Amino acid sequence: MPMNRSPAEQIPNIADILAAERRIGLNIRKTPVISEQLANNILGCELWLKCENLQRTGAFKFRGASNAIARLDESGTTGDVATHSSGNHGAALALAASTHNRRCRVVMPENSIKTKVEAVRRNGGDVVFCKPTQQDREKGLAEIVAGGCIPIPPYDHADIICGQGTAMVEFSDQCENLDIVLTPVGGGGLISGSAIAARALIPAATVFGAEPLGAADTALSLEQGQRVDHYPVDTIADGLRAIVGVLNFKIIQDNVDRVLTVSESGITDAMAFVWRHFRMLIEPSSATVIAAIIEHRKVFEGWKVGAIISGGNLDLENLPFKP
Amino acid sequence: MPMNRSPAEQIPNIADILAAERRIGLNIRKTPVISEQLANNILGCELWLKCENLQRTGAFKFRGASNAIARLDESGTTGDVATHSSGNHGAALALAASTHNRRCRVVMPENSIKTKVEAVRRNGGDVVFCKPTQQDREKGLAEIVAGGCIPIPPYDHADIICGQGTAMVEFSDQCENLDIVLTPVGGGGLISGSAIAARALIPAATVFGAEPLGAADTALSLEQGQRVDHYPVDTIADGLRAIVGVLNFKIIQDNVDRVLTVSESGITDAMAFVWRHFRMLIEPSSATVIAAIIEHRKVFEGWKVGAIISGGNLDLENLPFKP
Repeated sequence: MPMNRSPAEQIPNIADILAAERRIGLNIRKTPVISEQLANNILGCELWLKCENLQRTGAFKFRGASNAIARLDESGTTGDVATHSSGNHGAALALAASTHNRRCRVVMPENSIKTKVEAVRRNGGDVVFCKPTQQDREKGLAEIVAGGCIPIPPYDHADIICGQGTAMVEFSDQCENLDIVLTPVGGGGLISGSAIAARALIPAATVFGAEPLGAADTALSLEQGQRVDHYPVDTIADGLRAIVGVLNFKIIQDNVDRVLTVSESGITDAMAFVWRHFRMLIEPSSATVIAAIIEHRKVFEGWKVGAIISGGNLDLENLPFKP
Repeated sequence: MPMNRSPAEQIPNIADILAAERRIGLNIRKTPVISEQLANNILGCELWLKCENLQRTGAFKFRGASNAIARLDESGTTGDVATHSSGNHGAALALAASTHNRRCRVVMPENSIKTKVEAVRRNGGDVVFCKPTQQDREKGLAEIVAGGCIPIPPYDHADIICGQGTAMVEFSDQCENLDIVLTPVGGGGLISGSAIAARALIPAATVFGAEPLGAADTALSLEQGQRVDHYPVDTIADGLRAIVGVLNFKIIQDNVDRVLTVSESGITDAMAFVWRHFRMLIEPSSATVIAAIIEHRKVFEGWKVGAIISGGNLDLENLPFKP
């Protein structure tokens, strides 16, 4: 590692993730893992779902946020925190901050879904709206940080990656001998932490990501051998519209076997499938993993597959599928 | 016991319920138990939810149905099965039957919700519609039974009661030192099995039921000291419109401390509360337990409360609450 890299920019290892698990264990929820024979019959594989939609704040993001805040406490860093987020990281950071007696400000795109804006506020965060571009999100956050807040980025940070990786640590413990694991890919926090954990704890497993074709910056980056820093984003999966992080992309390059892309109709069909067979409403971003299994059937056929359902925060008024 | 009583009419004990647990253990899902500090702060008690909405077929009913079918196998009774049901018992029996290579016919009221009709069919059952009265349900079933099917009643049967009671066995194992346990009350299968299990396994706990004012036949029966056999039913809680069973009422009289009634607006508000804080969509019948905690706050204040969320089968098109 070059000497000028901060700890936040260094690639974490399994020991860092296990340390995160001990650090946040009492604060997070150990989420259930479920399977359904009728669903398996249709999909042609033995599918196990790790239900992070039932995590506190309704998404895995609470793991990373809790770890980042706990690390601030450990290092004696006082002060309020801030971030930019389409919603789930914002709500997660707000709750993690409030349980550690810190205030939290969240820069959110104006087109964020209502449920996620309310969740940030319910969990004690202050919302600051911005235009829905990556540049405006970062500019909004920079202004708040200039005012004295500690920035907690949503994914491109070792503490966040370690926190998210704890989902895969639990999963590998709850469900033995998985042949394939897969998670959605947005900014890359969940997939990078999960990949490091899977490599160490279930080395025989293949690690896949799932990404909407309309936000396939990571698949394109892997294809080109270098991270692209913009992409014409157009997807219903509001949690996956971010560009993959720098640190995250490095980890993905080294640890993820393949990022599978899925269609928009595949995502909404997958939401209907999960509602029908598991009676869970999951957000479009989460449904990408089920869409990947349906649209890339041959890749999964006959295997024992572990998929992380990343979140369940969506607006009930306009469900994008026919139940 | 009078000699002319069949085993199905005899009050089961904890040994019968533990035997049911061993019998159905591999087929059912051990459902998760979750709690949320923000919800607890609002409710004024420490609430733990046993999520039978995440049981196979989306309701606790799969426990009783699985036990009843497995008992037929044990006794060497061959043949197809039939029942009447507003939906959850029907879907549960259909799946339990099909996994044991039996056909299943389900008499359903014409006003059953669409999701539940589809669920019966998806799980391999044949639907026979009838007019939405208790008399027409029973008449429809009698006709099918006359044709040679084995009737599996939805609640008034020892095997069903034992199966449902396994939910409380698991709950008492997953969550220590509960001061109060409560479940919804419809026909009384869940509450009666749960009450027997709770009395044996957590004898210090108070056992409550929750019932809509618009279907408060059990509360009225307890008040009058004898089971009423009709009631002017008017409630959104479609799973609780049945009249309490004969065997079930006896068990409730002896083992349940109180049945708390709740309003219709309390039920829909409770659905919104569970969606907001736990990101689970639960059916109105399930929401009665949360409504009871909100509408009878003083009864629960300061206690550790275990509530069984009975099911998650509802039509998404017309959600009865504002998220």
